[in-house]
Amino acid sequence: MAAIHPVVLSGGNGTRLWPRSRKTMPKPFLPLVGERTLFEATLGRCAGDDRFASATIVTGAAHLAHVQAQAAAFPGTQVIVEPEGKNTAPAIALAAARLPEEAIMLVCPSDHHIADTTAFTRAACVAATLAGEDWLVALGIAPTHPETGYGYILRGDPIPGGFAVQRFVEKPDSATARAFLANGNYSWNGGIFAFRAGAFLAALERYRPEMAALVRRSVDGGRSEGALLFPDADSFAEIAEESVDYAVMEETDRAAVVPAVMGWSDIGNWHALRDARISGAAGLGLEDGANAVIGNVELVDCRGVLAETDGPRVSVIGLEDIAVVVDGGEVLVTSMSGAQKVGKLTGATSQ
Amino acid sequence: MAAIHPVVLSGGNGTRLWPRSRKTMPKPFLPLVGERTLFEATLGRCAGDDRFASATIVTGAAHLAHVQAQAAAFPGTQVIVEPEGKNTAPAIALAAARLPEEAIMLVCPSDHHIADTTAFTRAACVAATLAGEDWLVALGIAPTHPETGYGYILRGDPIPGGFAVQRFVEKPDSATARAFLANGNYSWNGGIFAFRAGAFLAALERYRPEMAALVRRSVDGGRSEGALLFPDADSFAEIAEESVDYAVMEETDRAAVVPAVMGWSDIGNWHALRDARISGAAGLGLEDGANAVIGNVELVDCRGVLAETDGPRVSVIGLEDIAVVVDGGEVLVTSMSGAQKVGKLTGATSQ
Repeated sequence: MAAIHPVVLSGGNGTRLWPRSRKTMPKPFLPLVGERTLFEATLGRCAGDDRFASATIVTGAAHLAHVQAQAAAFPGTQVIVEPEGKNTAPAIALAAARLPEEAIMLVCPSDHHIADTTAFTRAACVAATLAGEDWLVALGIAPTHPETGYGYILRGDPIPGGFAVQRFVEKPDSATARAFLANGNYSWNGGIFAFRAGAFLAALERYRPEMAALVRRSVDGGRSEGALLFPDADSFAEIAEESVDYAVMEETDRAAVVPAVMGWSDIGNWHALRDARISGAAGLGLEDGANAVIGNVELVDCRGVLAETDGPRVSVIGLEDIAVVVDGGEVLVTSMSGAQKVGKLTGATSQ
Repeated sequence: MAAIHPVVLSGGNGTRLWPRSRKTMPKPFLPLVGERTLFEATLGRCAGDDRFASATIVTGAAHLAHVQAQAAAFPGTQVIVEPEGKNTAPAIALAAARLPEEAIMLVCPSDHHIADTTAFTRAACVAATLAGEDWLVALGIAPTHPETGYGYILRGDPIPGGFAVQRFVEKPDSATARAFLANGNYSWNGGIFAFRAGAFLAALERYRPEMAALVRRSVDGGRSEGALLFPDADSFAEIAEESVDYAVMEETDRAAVVPAVMGWSDIGNWHALRDARISGAAGLGLEDGANAVIGNVELVDCRGVLAETDGPRVSVIGLEDIAVVVDGGEVLVTSMSGAQKVGKLTGATSQ
């Protein structure tokens, strides 16, 4: 099998892990689960193994310093500095345009947690094999609850190692999500894809010819500085932003899904982070009632409490399923079910 | 009616309102409910009215600076500086020994909240009248829940304005407290008493002759500095510590109780403070689901939350009946039912 070329996407500014994540220090660059940052863990999952070539990172200028500092341990890494964020389709296209046509790309968001690295590698290799046959492949995450915040993928006919995709469904309502979960043939779309670079660009040219041309022009007019590529900003600015799901995956009849059970979490809010922290090593089971504590914290009669502090002592008594986060002079206390509203707090929106 | 001489007791170090109250700045001297401190409010309730003479304060050296600063607005106040804390019986006896025999003392703890000042004054006048007839009078607080942390008083035969005391009961167990509440003839002992000074000392001499003699010797051997009296430390050191309840009230057959419904709270923990803050002006009804906020706080989907901060912003989402307190670099988060355990936290015990 040809080597897999990791393409690590590192853009976007989440606010749902405020006050720990900030505009100037966003989620991928924080050690949220374990000692490595999510970004370092993403690179680490796709390195140290001759199945993987060195990585290509697509990021914005705002995060370049974090990327360079944290990617320093991974030799041969290339960095594409997007002139501005245009969602995932142009970002992936930039990387595809820089790689050989025959290279198998493995597109990985850098702000997710994957507890079971072995299962990830296994699924990645299966996806890469299918990508070598010009399937456009999504990893399909086994859903664990009727989440309304993710896209879903419906499996169609079986193919070796996976399934043809019958349908992509964008964020469903609650009743639909419950039906998907009960149905058993739906996976979550975790944003992890395998493509042959040439096949991806061919699909983009077919379904979004203008985007493909502008990306090509931006790369051709770009400027290299060592391991950095700065695509041409003027051409890139003309691109309409669009996700790879809309621009390519929902258009093509060559979409495939490779199911993966690997303790995946997008660490989308404090609830998800609590769960990731109290999960076992394989990420497959929560220890009922366990707490997750970082820093100077005393808990009394607590269950399922996430508490972390960057300094001040935190004392918590008699509470269940809450998060207490003290960071940079901000104090957040939220129920697990309230965690999705963190991004709308004055503190989170005014940073 | 003769003037009432307020005797304000200001000793003790609570830890249950940590981290707001500290050893160096204990509960009476903090503005916990409204803009005045509990100590200032206690003096204020017994001033500005010719029924009240100027107050005598009994405190320890550790709190003298707070006492002097906060009592400055109340002219004529005398301060007795206890050489050490010996519980309430010796403290009250020091004041009694300094006052004329015929003076009617009104003993008031300085760390309680009384919402209805008019009701307090009315009850105090009734109690003073009975004290003038040499009853040893306790105000009886109308109980609102089966509290196990207070002493109870059982009413006996009616007397004008109140009842002879049939029995004092120290902190009951939970079943007993529920029975007392159902019975209807029990009051809480709130530690507010009216005595004729001479009658109190006569009772003390009868039931605790050694304590009475040592207090007398300590006062006689004491030293005055302006409005301050420093009783002799050596005599005082020999006194066995004891509450006025044990030393006098449970011994005498001249104990009386004057029932009072006045929105009383001992502000014994964050739960009680939350309730006092969200009570109406008369302190008799809680506004269901109201929150109590001080400082830079944002609440989203919260009910019955007390949140206060001395600086850092506090953001709370989706929680009910909790307290979040940020003070001096400490962060406390507790359920209302857990509030009684605050005093046992490492932070509270190691300050």
